[in-house]
Amino acid sequence: MKPGEDVKRIRARIRAGEWTGSTSGMAPAAVQGNVTILPREFASDFMRFCQLNPKPCPLLAVSEAGDPALPTLGDIDIRTDVPRYRVFEDGRCVDEPFDLTRWWRDDLVAFVLGCSLCFEQALLDAGLRLEHVERGSAVPMFRTSIATQAAGPFHGPMVVSMRPFRPAEAIRAIQVSSRFPTAHGAPVHIGFPEAIGIRDLSRPDFGSPVEVAPDQLPVFWACGVTPQAVVEAAKVPFCITHYPGSMLITDMRNADIAAL
Amino acid sequence: MKPGEDVKRIRARIRAGEWTGSTSGMAPAAVQGNVTILPREFASDFMRFCQLNPKPCPLLAVSEAGDPALPTLGDIDIRTDVPRYRVFEDGRCVDEPFDLTRWWRDDLVAFVLGCSLCFEQALLDAGLRLEHVERGSAVPMFRTSIATQAAGPFHGPMVVSMRPFRPAEAIRAIQVSSRFPTAHGAPVHIGFPEAIGIRDLSRPDFGSPVEVAPDQLPVFWACGVTPQAVVEAAKVPFCITHYPGSMLITDMRNADIAAL
Repeated sequence: MKPGEDVKRIRARIRAGEWTGSTSGMAPAAVQGNVTILPREFASDFMRFCQLNPKPCPLLAVSEAGDPALPTLGDIDIRTDVPRYRVFEDGRCVDEPFDLTRWWRDDLVAFVLGCSLCFEQALLDAGLRLEHVERGSAVPMFRTSIATQAAGPFHGPMVVSMRPFRPAEAIRAIQVSSRFPTAHGAPVHIGFPEAIGIRDLSRPDFGSPVEVAPDQLPVFWACGVTPQAVVEAAKVPFCITHYPGSMLITDMRNADIAAL
Repeated sequence: MKPGEDVKRIRARIRAGEWTGSTSGMAPAAVQGNVTILPREFASDFMRFCQLNPKPCPLLAVSEAGDPALPTLGDIDIRTDVPRYRVFEDGRCVDEPFDLTRWWRDDLVAFVLGCSLCFEQALLDAGLRLEHVERGSAVPMFRTSIATQAAGPFHGPMVVSMRPFRPAEAIRAIQVSSRFPTAHGAPVHIGFPEAIGIRDLSRPDFGSPVEVAPDQLPVFWACGVTPQAVVEAAKVPFCITHYPGSMLITDMRNADIAAL
């Protein structure tokens, strides 16, 4: 099989509705993306929000209004190429469809943001262990006291993901993730959860808890749940996101977005 | 003044005996080096020791036996171009001369190792503060429980330097120092002094203490005192080092040794 063939095959299966679950671990060399779809009237504010907050919201691509294609990411139709979606009206989830046939509109703009799967793969390739991956659970995520830079109606706290490491591993994890600025990049914090407004590491706001051993430091990365929480809080009249864990698989390879 | 002119001028002053003090802050864009001079019979073991322990002992250059020149580092005569030296016989300091005229021998091999001034300059350029620099004191250094890899008679614990940073600064400091593998590179530890055998941060083995505030993490780098302590412990019959703080200023620029 030629490189890239598996990506096209997987995306064809997703497009045909044959795969509707999590994309974690699928085509591990391919860049996956968080998806946010908004009406055109909110697009420029949201794009500015991403530009102001590149660590939680690293922008990989933006579609033209009404056009479901994302040519820079591959032969993609955003209406069918995500395994599952969530549709929001006035901030309330009204549908969790497997394609957007009945929801697509001519004024919709699709945003694809980098996600942590990319730097997690690089951490694993560097020989580091990720407990939540070994367990097959979602990484623990926390709302913080770190404010994002507001743009129009979009504002709110940064959400971070936490991975525990022993000190030398934490240093290596910082080096490795720094290579992927469009996949959240380097951590935003290390060591003192309370300094960023996290009271109890055993009670994440999203995902499942992971214990931090006494010889480990909690390391915190900006998380792609941030834009979702921000869009939800903005109570835009209409919005679509990927279903948690069911991402867009692109033709870009992790190696392509490595900064060095 | 052309780039490099200041380095040649400074080295000429040192060679003429007009400057015999610390080189800290002199020609900040130039790479400075730790100097260890050993009889030829110990040279290959010491070189192997450096190769095995590149973080504390990043080798910049080795002279030919009896030849005081180090052409890859500039127009250097190692007998005169360090402001001050220490001469050891059987592990005991017997002289602290300003040149090596009366001590030079035809069997001596000079080793120049990268030092922390280079990555410290990069940290300052990145907008980070270094308290020991602001105070004009020596960085606090500690013997650790981290063993070096032995080679022949050379073995012993790694010595580290400690600089305190708030979490986001610590992450930046790791990124910045990672660019300088021939100047100790990334830290070897962060966060838990006791995990590397350090009992009391307020009582360094060398240098002056620097307080770690409650919102700061202690960050530890491998230190160029390691090879000096190792050579001292090996009780070689004859050895010369630079006087602490009085380094060899080379023609190499910090920018030349940046890995990326």
